Formats: sequence, C-alpha cells, structure tokens
Amino acid sequence: MPDRSSIPAGRRKRIDRLLATLNEKKLSGIFISQPENRRYLSGFRPSDPQLDESSGFLILGPDLALLGTDPRYEMEAFQQARGFQPFIYRGGLEGSWPELQKRLPPLKRLAFESPALSYHAYRRLRKWFLKGRAPVTLVPTFHLVEGLRAQKDPSELKAIERSLAITERAFQKVLSRLKPGQTEKEISWRIKQLIHLHGGDDPAFEPIVASGPQAALPHAESTDREIKKGEPVLFDLGSKWQGYCSDMSRTVFLGKPSERFKEVYRLVREAQLKAQEGICSGMDTRKVDGLARSIIEKGGYGTYFKHSLGHGVGLATHEIPSLNPLKADLLRPGMVVTIEPGIYLPGWGGVRLENMAIIRKNGARLLSQDMTFYNF
Amino acid sequence: MPDRSSIPAGRRKRIDRLLATLNEKKLSGIFISQPENRRYLSGFRPSDPQLDESSGFLILGPDLALLGTDPRYEMEAFQQARGFQPFIYRGGLEGSWPELQKRLPPLKRLAFESPALSYHAYRRLRKWFLKGRAPVTLVPTFHLVEGLRAQKDPSELKAIERSLAITERAFQKVLSRLKPGQTEKEISWRIKQLIHLHGGDDPAFEPIVASGPQAALPHAESTDREIKKGEPVLFDLGSKWQGYCSDMSRTVFLGKPSERFKEVYRLVREAQLKAQEGICSGMDTRKVDGLARSIIEKGGYGTYFKHSLGHGVGLATHEIPSLNPLKADLLRPGMVVTIEPGIYLPGWGGVRLENMAIIRKNGARLLSQDMTFYNF
Repeated sequence: MPDRSSIPAGRRKRIDRLLATLNEKKLSGIFISQPENRRYLSGFRPSDPQLDESSGFLILGPDLALLGTDPRYEMEAFQQARGFQPFIYRGGLEGSWPELQKRLPPLKRLAFESPALSYHAYRRLRKWFLKGRAPVTLVPTFHLVEGLRAQKDPSELKAIERSLAITERAFQKVLSRLKPGQTEKEISWRIKQLIHLHGGDDPAFEPIVASGPQAALPHAESTDREIKKGEPVLFDLGSKWQGYCSDMSRTVFLGKPSERFKEVYRLVREAQLKAQEGICSGMDTRKVDGLARSIIEKGGYGTYFKHSLGHGVGLATHEIPSLNPLKADLLRPGMVVTIEPGIYLPGWGGVRLENMAIIRKNGARLLSQDMTFYNF
Repeated sequence: MPDRSSIPAGRRKRIDRLLATLNEKKLSGIFISQPENRRYLSGFRPSDPQLDESSGFLILGPDLALLGTDPRYEMEAFQQARGFQPFIYRGGLEGSWPELQKRLPPLKRLAFESPALSYHAYRRLRKWFLKGRAPVTLVPTFHLVEGLRAQKDPSELKAIERSLAITERAFQKVLSRLKPGQTEKEISWRIKQLIHLHGGDDPAFEPIVASGPQAALPHAESTDREIKKGEPVLFDLGSKWQGYCSDMSRTVFLGKPSERFKEVYRLVREAQLKAQEGICSGMDTRKVDGLARSIIEKGGYGTYFKHSLGHGVGLATHEIPSLNPLKADLLRPGMVVTIEPGIYLPGWGGVRLENMAIIRKNGARLLSQDMTFYNF
C-alpha cells in the first residue's frame, strides 16, 4: 500500500479529481501511459525517448498509486514520484508481469488512454490481464487527464508565464539584430542559444524562421536561405521552463512594407484582435475560431488560413482545447490557449501572429506582450 | 495513378522489397504511420510534432504510392516525396475520408503498423474502412519496414558516419577543456553548441553528462552539479545529420583514478572489446550481449549492468536490432549497432563505454574512433 499522504498536495488533488471521474464511469483504476499525464500526476519527469519507447506508466486507483519503470529510471522514480510505489521491471515488463500482478488489488474494469497506447501495446496488455488471477476488462478512455490538464493551477500558470518571458526576451534580441543576409538556419540557431541563455530548459519545438516564399509553409523547416529586403519573415518560437511550454509567432517585413504585406498583415491582426476581445469562458471553441476566420474570409483570404485559430499550451506545446472550425469544445476558466490566425500565399509568403491568453470567468487575460510592429 | 517511375531509385528499391513481403503475406497494401518509416520510404521529412500529432501517412500497394498530410505540410509533400500522389486533408482527415476512399484501388487486406498506431487511431481507421464501398480488413504487422531499415545501404552508412564524426569532434573539444567546477548542464549545452558548429542538424537526443553519484543513473538528466576531482564523469551524446543519428558514450575520471574506478572501467572495457571482437553476421543478438555480460558477471558486477548491450542506430537513435539477453534476433550484414556495456553503482557513479559498428559478412567494422583514455 503506498503512503498516499506523502504525495504532494497539488498532485494529490489532481489524482482525486481523476479518481472521481473514474468512479462516475464505474472504472476501478487507470493505466497511464501518456508521458505528460504521467508527469502531471506523479512528478516523474523522464519523457519517452521515442514514439515506440516508453519510460514508464502509472496505475492509479482508490488505494493504488504505482509507478512502473525500467532500471534505467529507477533513481528518478524514487526521487521524483513522491508517494508512488515504484515497480522496477528488470528484464523487461514482459518477464515481470506475474510479479506486478501480485502487487495489484483486484481491478475489474481498468481504464487505459486510447490515444497514448499503441495497438501493439494494447494487445499485449490485454493478454496479460486476461491471464491474471481475476481477469481484468480494459476500457478505452479519451483525454481524461488531458481534460484536467487543460485548466491550469496557479503554479502551472507561473511556469508558463516564466517560459513565455524567456521566449519573448529571445525574440526581442533576435529582432534587434535582424539584418538582410542572415540565413534562416542561423537565426533559428540564435533563437535556441538565447532561449538557453535566458534560462529555458529547451526550445519547446524547433524554431520556425521562414522568409519570402518559405513563409507560405505554415510549418516550414528553416533553410540556408538568406533573408532579404522586400520580403516577410515569419517567426514561430517557444521555450520550456520546468516542463512548461510557451508559443509565439510574429511576422515582420524587411524594408518598406509592400501593399500586399500591408493588406495581409492588417487582416491577420484584425482577426487576432477580434478573437482576443471576444474569447471568454463558456464559449464554444468553434465560435472563437469563427470570430477570427470570418474576418479573413470577408477579406477574401479564407482559403489561405489553413489551420486552426489556436490550441491549449501547457506541459505539451499542443494540447486541448483546440480552437478549430470543426470540433466543439467549451472554454473553461484557467485554460491557456494561443490565438494565431495566419494567411499563407504560395509563392509569396505568409503572415502569422500568435499570442497566448488565459481564459477567465469574464473574458481572458493576455499573457503575451501584445507587440505590434505595424499600424497600417 | 502515381508516376512511380519518378520515385528515386533508392527509395523505389525499398518499396519493392516491402511490397514483396506484403505479397508473401497476402496483404494488398500497407498504411504507414511510423514517422521514420514514412521518411525512409517516401523522402517526406516532417517528423511528428508530438506523440499524439501526426504529420501524415503513406498508403502503399502494387499500384499505389500515396502520401496523406494536412495543409500545413502541403508544400513539403510536393517538394520532398517525389513520385508520391499527395492527398491533402483540408479540414481534418475525418472529413476528407470519403474523398480519400475514391482515390484508393480496392484493398482487401490492408496492413498497418501495430506499434505506430494508437488504439484510438486504429479504431477510427477501422470504422472508416468498414464504411467504405468494399470493406477492408485491417491486419496488424510488426516492424516490417523497421526490418528493412535495419540493414543500411551505402548512402545511409555515409550519413551515419558523417553524423558520428560530428559527435566525436564535439566530444574531443569538450574533453580538451574539461575542468572541475564546470556544471553538468554547462557541459551538456556546450555539446549542443559544438554539434551545431560542426554541422549537425541537431543533437540526436539530450546529451547526458553525469558526474559522481549521478553517473549511477544510466539515463541521468544533466543537473547544476559541478564536476569535481575524484569522481567519474559519464558522457552520452549523439548528433543527427540529414536525419541520421549517431551515439557514443565515454567515461573519464577527474584526477587520479581511484582503485574502484580502475576495477570497474577495466571490466567494462574488457566486456566491450570481447563483444567487438566476437560480433558478426549470422550471430544471435542474445549471444553478443552474453559475450560482454558474462565478463561483467564473472567480475562480480552482473546486477549493476542494468541495460542491454546495444541497439541499432539509423533514422532513429534506438532501432532494431536490440542486443539484449532476452529477445532473439539475427545479425545481418549492413546492420549498424552500438556496443555499450556499463556498470552503475548507486551512490558512487558509473562507467559506460559505447562504440558503433557495422556488421559485415565476416565480423564487423568499428565506425567509432575506439578512443581509450585508460589502460589500467
């Protein structure tokens, strides 16, 4: 039996909320394989080194808080996951299975995270549980923990704000030295250096620096292309601080802005402002997306706004809610989201402006410094 | 119908080998969701931004080479995946499903990659295929493409060697300036800078710099701990070059090596040499692991060698084959593997030495510069 009282209060609260949901659904426990969920609930920090390589799992139930991991992460398990019973599978999980089963209380219906378990791992898990003393039914669940993670608590918000401040400082420095002739890759690398210099754990994702026609690719890889006068340069960058991510995009024009740039920028900015002003708790995410999208559509660029308006940010760069035209979700207080309309014109380039905001009971508070370079 | 003749010859050969395997298994096509497999077969470079976020998939069959992706990666699809028919799912794959089905020839039994498709995605895919004009049976497969990837062709070997040279140069520079008082994090960051400086795309993984007791964690996070005299420092680093990874570990002792260090180092080195000399094509992977492990066991440290002897390296840092005591696999010519025995003593530290080698018909060729710092 784990000593649940030694789980830090913040994490115990999260676990209790999860257990309440399980109880409602008549589930006797949950198998957690999603790496950010694992960290959120237990404090165990190792990420999964690769898609097909897990650094561990949790099993949670009313009287159960177990962290399974392999010997590579044994000491992290003891040091980081306070109050969790560590289960170290020497010689692979497969071989340790009978041993693990002895440690588990009877579980009738065990939930698992259906987007975070491969079909292969699911089949294996199922086989094991069917072989156990008392067969266990595996029940797929979708985004139970992600739903909790969407609403940030004060300590999480603090980490996100710190992460965003690092990102913004890095961008300011890059901007102040931006010159024609620098290559996209060079600038991208400078961003990574500055994120490190300002205390970020790491970039949250590979920084995007896309100039001229490259800026028409919403997720461009930085290339050896030199940035030059008469073209837009699109930046998208973010850092991590104590695991928490930030995300920002800005677009500038080298030299005197062209008429095309002015028109596109003005529209993207108007769309962003509209969404920033209108977004609030209780709102349907499709409606927020619509606030911005309708402005770009009216401007005649609807087909060139190729992605959703925004997404949640936290332990992952992209998390729920997604602000997109297709899938309904409800905004709740404490959610942290990006607001990032964009227009991408093949052959010419693109403009994206991205801020972060936290949803409050009435409206939202902008977390980003709402820098505008242009007032066309 | 795609213009298969415009698929570059090297990739066409890979696809043909895959199709031959499908044919043997009476499969009419395969759905490829594993990001490195996708790149290996099509040239499409975007990785998956997150565990639960795909940047696309391939469907391959005798008359079929299709690349599905969303509008963010539209231009990459056209530029990189030569000879593939691009299918852009605007408004999500869900909505575009009927459209995609029209493009597909009749497929009776469609393979999918069971470790690279979540249970959630599998269920959705299955629903779609069952709704189609002619129902499709989904058949799970395991490591079909990974099996091809394991044996490197000359262009891949070149990329791996280049990547390893970058890693080794970075390490040499770090080593030449190593001084007590530097922190693990500082050194880890210096490694990343040097990898960039020497032309690496990126580190292949977060560099490990673990000193003193931290070195007892095989996968330690670098900390703010200062390295000091009288302790081992364990390094594990790798870079990527044109997508291909490298991997090396070295352990040094600051100051005059202690007797304990000498004993442990000697044993690890002996184990490594034994495996390097014995490894060859046709050998069972468990036997290679055993060559090294038995030496460490005889030396009395068997329980402190907590991981497998090695793993394949290529587009992923960890790929098949795995050289471990439990799972049988057969070494084949052209496989690139690491040989990395280690001993980890809680409270004291650890020693790991890791080289890369390519399996040849007779024996193996070491790819790493087999640097030894000590000759105890």
